[in-house]
Amino acid sequence: MKKKVTLIFGGAGFIGKNLVDSLVLNGERIVISVDNLSNGISSHLRDHESKSNFRFIYSDCSNPNGCEQIFSEASSFGPIEDVWHLAANSDIRAGTDNPSVDLRDTFMTTYEIIRALEKYGARRFYFASSSAIYGEGRGLPLTESTGPLLPLSNYGAMKLASEAYISASTQRLGFTAYLLRFPNVVGVPATHGVIFDFCKKLIQNPSVLNVLGNGSQRKCYLHVSDLIDALLSVASNNDAGSIVPLNIGPSDRGVTVKWIAEQVVSYVSPGAKIIYGTEPRGWIGDIPSFNYSIDKILATGWSPKYSSEEAIKRAIGEVADQCAIGHSGGGSLRHS
Amino acid sequence: MKKKVTLIFGGAGFIGKNLVDSLVLNGERIVISVDNLSNGISSHLRDHESKSNFRFIYSDCSNPNGCEQIFSEASSFGPIEDVWHLAANSDIRAGTDNPSVDLRDTFMTTYEIIRALEKYGARRFYFASSSAIYGEGRGLPLTESTGPLLPLSNYGAMKLASEAYISASTQRLGFTAYLLRFPNVVGVPATHGVIFDFCKKLIQNPSVLNVLGNGSQRKCYLHVSDLIDALLSVASNNDAGSIVPLNIGPSDRGVTVKWIAEQVVSYVSPGAKIIYGTEPRGWIGDIPSFNYSIDKILATGWSPKYSSEEAIKRAIGEVADQCAIGHSGGGSLRHS
Repeated sequence: MKKKVTLIFGGAGFIGKNLVDSLVLNGERIVISVDNLSNGISSHLRDHESKSNFRFIYSDCSNPNGCEQIFSEASSFGPIEDVWHLAANSDIRAGTDNPSVDLRDTFMTTYEIIRALEKYGARRFYFASSSAIYGEGRGLPLTESTGPLLPLSNYGAMKLASEAYISASTQRLGFTAYLLRFPNVVGVPATHGVIFDFCKKLIQNPSVLNVLGNGSQRKCYLHVSDLIDALLSVASNNDAGSIVPLNIGPSDRGVTVKWIAEQVVSYVSPGAKIIYGTEPRGWIGDIPSFNYSIDKILATGWSPKYSSEEAIKRAIGEVADQCAIGHSGGGSLRHS
Repeated sequence: MKKKVTLIFGGAGFIGKNLVDSLVLNGERIVISVDNLSNGISSHLRDHESKSNFRFIYSDCSNPNGCEQIFSEASSFGPIEDVWHLAANSDIRAGTDNPSVDLRDTFMTTYEIIRALEKYGARRFYFASSSAIYGEGRGLPLTESTGPLLPLSNYGAMKLASEAYISASTQRLGFTAYLLRFPNVVGVPATHGVIFDFCKKLIQNPSVLNVLGNGSQRKCYLHVSDLIDALLSVASNNDAGSIVPLNIGPSDRGVTVKWIAEQVVSYVSPGAKIIYGTEPRGWIGDIPSFNYSIDKILATGWSPKYSSEEAIKRAIGEVADQCAIGHSGGGSLRHS
């Protein structure tokens, strides 16, 4: 009997690579990773190239024909059981400058994947949604039932638009969908995000770190190892309904950008001067603070290993290592 | 000094025509009605053709070039102050059969209008959203803060997707947007909806009325005259923030489809046999019942004149008249 197939869109990106690593190691499924390598990096998956239960498809799933071709090819290996949709524009600021980026890479990828799924079938659909769908933080913790949903960034808008289309599609097509609302996720291989940005800046100029915004933004951060653990836990549970929104995050109220800047400087370039902006936001669409309720996922038995502080500290070491490897001369910045 | 311009997308449709009528009569603005006449009907606006403060532009606003051209032409008459976006696929079932209809006519129209607005500017944006964004009815009344938002139809999905993109765009572009969540709206000139469907069926076969679903669906209905009154009231108020979600509806819990069928039969074809389906829903994505909180708009001073029952009764007379005019021989069905 053929093994079942797990199809992962965005499977060469930061989170995709970590998920692929776990699923390939597990060995129960044929794992097919799809990526257009716009943000993802093919070397992320090099370790798996020779494995019999792994395939990589280089394709752009925002293209209707491309997406049908992917499902057709994937289903030749076995019945498609799970589809993970992690493909998206992950650069929130790029989407502010040019909304067509989030439209194409975040929303139209969702639309086209569902269109192809309609033809080829799949039992479960896991969508990498985001805390950005909630928009401005409220005083109270954001639960899955919090409204109104008024995203501030095109990134958040196209994530919410995707959730909406997935929700209607579960009615029409009968699959189960999880709307997994990720917080900020840190770790390696980093391709973007606050720690990566700070490290890159300090490699360019080890004596000054310019911070976007006044540093008071407070957000929660999850280490990617905790995220992958949560995703596998969700996937192993029995279906909880046809459409399941679920916050994933640490259980604390987060840390400030100022604290992160100080930690990064102390680790990679002690003594560097930190210069803050004047605005409470880092950029248009940046959310200065939010407070996430994870009661729903805690009730399923999963809980995070690391707090926001611990996740950041761990990730700083990992990202600094990654940057030092990636930049000749970067080694001089490494904490001895 | 040039008069200010009000631009109305979907301005030849059922609600669009009623809004245009009021705004042209008011006379304060140049009213520019835009429609691709896919659902709208140009004869709806025939009365205004010769008026100096009215223009009709035949164009499809889901087309990027079309949309820029519309804003360019409209701004030649004066500064664009208000943009009303009422253009959408209004046939929920057509969108279930083919999701590309709602994608193009509901979501991409929003996307392209905002793209053109970015270039040409406007102060306020009024979006015809829908109760369908809430998805399955809950026991409690749906307020603007109710979540999660899990639409059941592609129609509702693309309305929510539009809300999301509008929300992010207010941050980026600085205009004020109202997300006006309409209930079922009845009246004339009807182009779709339960009363229109029933009348058409009874014109075809005066002795039998086949009803989709078991008739138990309970929804609230607003008469279009009340809706227009609400829209003008919203537009005349001072801005209440940069992004304002607002439920508009009657203050009752609605009426059943069975009751509507009985009223229509009694008015247009007494004695016709009513045959119900077996499902609690009329179609995939149909919402069997919902209960709308309109406390927020009541607090602004507006209130509906008609209950759901009164709105339906009034609309039955109007739609029957419209159908009798539209169909030779339909006159025999008219209530004497």
